[in-house]
Formats: sequence, C-alpha cells, structure tokens
Amino acid sequence: MTSDFKHYLKENRNTINQRLIDILACFDQDRELTRAMQHSLMAGGKRLRPILSMAAARACHADPRMALPVGCAIEMVHTYSLIHDDLPAMDDDDLRRGRLTCHKKFSEPVALLAGDALLTHAFHVLAEPAPVFHMAPNSHIRLELISKLSKASGADGMVQGQMLDMLSYQGNDSDLLSHLKQIHALKTGKMIIVSVETGALSVGADPEQVEKLVVYADKIGLAFQVVDDILNVEGDPDVMGKAAGSDEMNDKMTFPAVIGLDESKKYARQLINEAIDAIALFDDDAWPLRSIAGYIIDRNR
Amino acid sequence: MTSDFKHYLKENRNTINQRLIDILACFDQDRELTRAMQHSLMAGGKRLRPILSMAAARACHADPRMALPVGCAIEMVHTYSLIHDDLPAMDDDDLRRGRLTCHKKFSEPVALLAGDALLTHAFHVLAEPAPVFHMAPNSHIRLELISKLSKASGADGMVQGQMLDMLSYQGNDSDLLSHLKQIHALKTGKMIIVSVETGALSVGADPEQVEKLVVYADKIGLAFQVVDDILNVEGDPDVMGKAAGSDEMNDKMTFPAVIGLDESKKYARQLINEAIDAIALFDDDAWPLRSIAGYIIDRNR
Repeated sequence: MTSDFKHYLKENRNTINQRLIDILACFDQDRELTRAMQHSLMAGGKRLRPILSMAAARACHADPRMALPVGCAIEMVHTYSLIHDDLPAMDDDDLRRGRLTCHKKFSEPVALLAGDALLTHAFHVLAEPAPVFHMAPNSHIRLELISKLSKASGADGMVQGQMLDMLSYQGNDSDLLSHLKQIHALKTGKMIIVSVETGALSVGADPEQVEKLVVYADKIGLAFQVVDDILNVEGDPDVMGKAAGSDEMNDKMTFPAVIGLDESKKYARQLINEAIDAIALFDDDAWPLRSIAGYIIDRNR
Repeated sequence: MTSDFKHYLKENRNTINQRLIDILACFDQDRELTRAMQHSLMAGGKRLRPILSMAAARACHADPRMALPVGCAIEMVHTYSLIHDDLPAMDDDDLRRGRLTCHKKFSEPVALLAGDALLTHAFHVLAEPAPVFHMAPNSHIRLELISKLSKASGADGMVQGQMLDMLSYQGNDSDLLSHLKQIHALKTGKMIIVSVETGALSVGADPEQVEKLVVYADKIGLAFQVVDDILNVEGDPDVMGKAAGSDEMNDKMTFPAVIGLDESKKYARQLINEAIDAIALFDDDAWPLRSIAGYIIDRNR
C-alpha cells in the first residue's frame, strides 16, 4: 500500500468516524440503547462503504463531502445487519472485529433494538442531514438515495441474501458456484454497489459514469467476498479478530470449498482486473477507486 | 358504533389492505421471506394508524388517498415492531390477533429478517410510491414524511419505548404513573401522533391545523393504551385473540395495576373528551376523527 493511499484511508476514516459520532450525539448518551448503538457503530470497522461513496464522488470531479451523508447512512445500515447477523438466532457469534458482539456486551433484546434503531436512523440522516452535515445533496437527490439504499438493503437485497445464506443448498453440485455468487450478490454485493452508485448520484454524476462505476462496484464486491473466504482459510486470527477456519467449522459454503483455494485466488485477481478496466475512462481523480481495488485483494483482514 | 362509521372503517380497511397487498406483490411470492412478511402484515390488524392518517387528511378537506402512502408505510413499521416484540428474546409470544406469531409460524431468524425487511421497505414506499399509489405527495413533502416517521419509530421514539418497557422500574412509587405514561408516549404514542400528523402533512395542512391534530392524537394514543390495559384485565379472550390477564401474569406495569380499574376507566374517558375538544374548530369533515375517538374507548378488542 502506498503512503499516499494509507494517508487517504486514514484521513477519510477520521472524517467518517467524526460524522458518525456526531450522528449519535443527538441521542441521550447515558441510555443503554445509545451505548449499544455506539458500541457496534464505533467498533473500528474499515469504513469501506462510505470510503467508496466518497471515492466515487471524487472520481466524478466533485467534493467528496457531498457523499458523506449517504456514506454514513450506509455504514449504519451495514452495522445494523452485522448486529442482527451475530444474534443467537442467526450466526450466534461472540466476537466481531476482536470485540464482544452487541448482544454479548449488552443483551439480546438490547442488540435487537440497537440494530432496529440504527436502521431506522439511517433513513432519518438522509431525510434530514443538517445539522450534522455541512453539505448535502438537494432533497430530490436525497429521496433517490433513500430509494436506492432501501432497495439494496431490503427484501430484494441484503435481507434476502441473509435468508439464502441461512438455508441449506438443495440444488445440483454443478449449480453450486452460481448459487454461491447469488448469495454474495444479494448479501454483500448490492450494498457495495449502492455505496459507489449513491456516492456518484450524490454529486449529480451522469448516467454513463454511474453505469461504469456500478460495474466496478459489482466486481470488487464479489472479489471482496472471495478474499474474505480465502482469509478465513489461511488468515491470521490475531489480525482478523476471529478464528481462521471458522467458516469451515460452521459448515459454510465458501469459494475455497466450492472451487478450491488456488482457483479462488485466481478468480479474485480476475475480478479486480475487470473492476479496474471498467473505470479505465476515468482520469486520475479515480486513483482512490483503483487503489481500493488493489487493497481489497492485498488486505490481510 | 353507527352504521355510517362501520361502513367508513370497512371501506378504508379494504382500501388499505389492497394497497398493502400491492406493496408486497413486488416481491417473489414463492419466497419464505415474502410469505413471512405477508403473514404478519395481512394478519387482520385494525389498521388504526393508516385510517387515522386518512381521517386527518379528510379533516383538512383533502382527498384522503393522498395519505395512503404514509399510512401504509406506518402500518409496515408498526407490523415490524410487533414481529420483533413477539420474538423469544423480547416478549416471547406465541399468538398475536389469534394467529401464530411470525417466529412460531416460520422460525426465529425468518421473523427477525421479515421484520427488518418490512421496516426497510416502509421507507422505500415513501421514497418511491409509484406504481402502487395513484396519487402521492410531492417529493419535498415525502422527504418530510420520512423524517417524521423515522424519528417517531427510532431511538427517540418507539424503539426507546420498547427499551423502557423491558427494564424494571427503579424509581419511587409516586413517580410510577408518570413513568408508565412515558413508556406509552414513546412505545405507542409517537406512532399514533405521527400517523395523524403525516396524514395532515401529506395534504399540505397549515401548521395551526397540524398542531391541533397532534394534541388530538396525543390524547387518543394514551387513551388507546389505557383501554388496552383495561381490556387485558376484563376482556373476552376469544374476542381479543389472547388470554385476558396475560399482562398481570407477565408482571407488566399497567394502568389498572398502578391507579386501579375504576380510575383507569375515568382517565380514558377524560382523555377522549380532551381529544375531541382539541379538534373542536374542525368542521364536519372531522367526523371520522371524532368517531375514532369514541371507538377507542368503546372497543372490545
């Protein structure tokens, strides 16, 4: 990773974290509900999704801060999905990013409600970005952002992906790979796409730009998941904050399990190349998007 | 109940139910997630909240169908809250309106996700009411509706009410009544208020009208909860669809438990009178709002 990109990530993470703190500052800080929301939202996530929104805005030659409201809203929706996914009724995880999951730190009902509250407030942030955000898209665009985000995260997107992930696969072995791709397209892919797409829409990008950015996001989203599966097989548990091999133990369908480890690595590399090709016509303002693509394949957690 | 009002309720319920069916029709009907959403959304609820939205629009001399999008969105948010509230981690209820609760009919993870999906899609309906709704407020008003609904149902509204309802009360006996009122104001009151308020905002009501309607809604919302508690003590379980006395068994804080049954009845009557007084200046187009106030106190389930 170049020092420029390291600096870029750090600076943007700081900006995003500060806005997320400001968003939660509107709630009574002494309440358990607020503390549970804070615990999960400020758990040291990579902030990949809001960084993608801001990088897409920059690639379109606009002020990336215009994409901060939607980036933060997406991070809140992402966090709620992790809280609910970790619940005993779902994956029943005790640790997330090396910290206690929300229901372990607080309790099951509190975690359920903290997730509900984060999801609900994400839409409030888009409906009313002031006074947390100094700049924001106009109300017409914000309504479009709400439409895109609710679709990507709902019953035809992320939530349905979680449903499919839970069900055991009943089809033929030959369809296993496409089934796996479909789960990821819904469970994580649509949220990655919407991060890039709404970042561009926030700054009034033209449809041709948005189309190319969506292809880029589609590719890196899938690559991200393939790399996740690879790291789960051979990653360092101290760096990752969870045990390597835990997917295998949980009998999860993964790319290494379906196509093998070497093929998975080749596939991830191919997807990243396709992603970079998709945005070939963007000028040097797209360098963060290109660096993010490289980071996804080279990361170790 | 007059036959005019009976007819009014029936006709509006039919309209609302048809729009709710149309909203879910956009999802693959064979999927378990869709069926779980349908199971709870079409479980024969009274549709009090969307009826209030439409009645408020009518009181302002406007076409009540303009309030249907927000009314349906509110009903979806209300339904998600019931699904999550019934989960084993929360109230652990097997029956709701005489039918199996969502997690009993399907499973706990499916119920969790169906609730998440209904909440998420409620905001999508407001962001993009077409093609389900033939008429809808303009985009500027719809953004305001999203802002109001997300606030009323979130961490400073319904979700915080559910938190308080879960915690055992630690204060003095003399503050018990105000604590009980605060729980209800948050858990159910804000959603009743926002139903009436957004119904009026949907048709561009002026601030003075909205202010009076909010007072009306505040009063009937609390009265509704007092009557709920009374019915739980002396209601007919066959009519109510759940066992009478179940609150007492669950050691719940209720108005009859805190101020006695007779005082509770007097209090409910007083609140209804105050609600009707608050809208005294509205003309005969407010008759459904007045009838709803009467219905709340005279209902048997």
